[in-house]
Amino acid sequence: MSTKVITIDTQILKKNDITANENRELFKQHRVLAINVLSSPGSGKTTLMVRTCGTLKEKLRVAVSVGDLQTEADALRIAGAGVPVVQINTGTACHLDAHMVQLSLKALPLAATDILFIENVGNLVCPANFDIGEHLKVVLLSVAEGEEKPLKYPPIFQHADCVCINKTDLLPYVDFNVNQCRENLKRICPNAPVFEFSCKNGEGLSAWHDWLLDKWAALAGEAC
Amino acid sequence: MSTKVITIDTQILKKNDITANENRELFKQHRVLAINVLSSPGSGKTTLMVRTCGTLKEKLRVAVSVGDLQTEADALRIAGAGVPVVQINTGTACHLDAHMVQLSLKALPLAATDILFIENVGNLVCPANFDIGEHLKVVLLSVAEGEEKPLKYPPIFQHADCVCINKTDLLPYVDFNVNQCRENLKRICPNAPVFEFSCKNGEGLSAWHDWLLDKWAALAGEAC
Repeated sequence: MSTKVITIDTQILKKNDITANENRELFKQHRVLAINVLSSPGSGKTTLMVRTCGTLKEKLRVAVSVGDLQTEADALRIAGAGVPVVQINTGTACHLDAHMVQLSLKALPLAATDILFIENVGNLVCPANFDIGEHLKVVLLSVAEGEEKPLKYPPIFQHADCVCINKTDLLPYVDFNVNQCRENLKRICPNAPVFEFSCKNGEGLSAWHDWLLDKWAALAGEAC
Repeated sequence: MSTKVITIDTQILKKNDITANENRELFKQHRVLAINVLSSPGSGKTTLMVRTCGTLKEKLRVAVSVGDLQTEADALRIAGAGVPVVQINTGTACHLDAHMVQLSLKALPLAATDILFIENVGNLVCPANFDIGEHLKVVLLSVAEGEEKPLKYPPIFQHADCVCINKTDLLPYVDFNVNQCRENLKRICPNAPVFEFSCKNGEGLSAWHDWLLDKWAALAGEAC
């Protein structure tokens, strides 16, 4: 690609970063912990949102902003967990940017929210390049996808604050080596904790929920 | 996004289309059927390449160009099938473009190739926007990903010349409704044939292989 294109990309990112800072300020003002949830299509982000919101809402006020090219299917599923949710339809865009997220914030009760999950478009590449003002990036990986994914798609894993290995109920039926996956993750994101769970049967989710509650407590502590 | 950005995007695509036309001319000159293989990360593109090349090479001369952000793991696996293969590492780019493919063509024995598979970067969004000079686009979907994917990621399915539903061996263990998936595909790409198979146990692959042989025969017929 030509230098001209790179220059323009930089401008897009600069504009995005200004809006991301505005989002960050808004999260700070309302003491909202904002979590960017990233994965391939079909890794189980939406099922994770349903499970996690259903559990956390007993202790905290949770909301979700969810991105998809089209349909409001995910928002409808998450709404079933009894939390406020906004669907962002990106049309053809392969990622959420700070502006799209900002639009969704206007439709959410931020002043009555402790944790906001932002479920990104299913894409293991592009969303890594866009700061949306979040505190934490969570990358989800399904055991049906293969343990080499962190090595093949390093940028998104390099920025992960934690990695979730989902669909562990399928482990007996797929060629997925959990230990090798953990080794690969150590090479790419050595400081990110790794959780293994099945959103289908719920097994292993409590450690992930505890991590979220700890992160929330840390933010609330800072704000005091 | 601003008008300026859209203008630049158009220029990138124009430049890409010129190179795609050069690739197309090269495929015509050497009578090569070029197939763009598209899917999410972890749908099984590489295993499909290994299986399909292993079978087709008994009848035709097959080669593969494979794209990944990093690693040559996929090329090494495909080379095990005994066909010429080139790995394209895109760095941070989320798709193959015509120029990347053109570079890979220089390293392949085009004059001794009947079918060239171009395994794209795992991404269900961006590769849809880039013509690489191919004759056919094949979209792969794993039953672990969910039957609603064609509705949520329509652009890539709209351009599909056929859709392959992979990992059918997992059907007893996942909530994937094959009939609903076929209904969804009918709405998005009504003319694309749909194949169901398992690259793990080989079941169902023969119909897909026959389709490829028919497409090759049609191209060879035209060229006579």
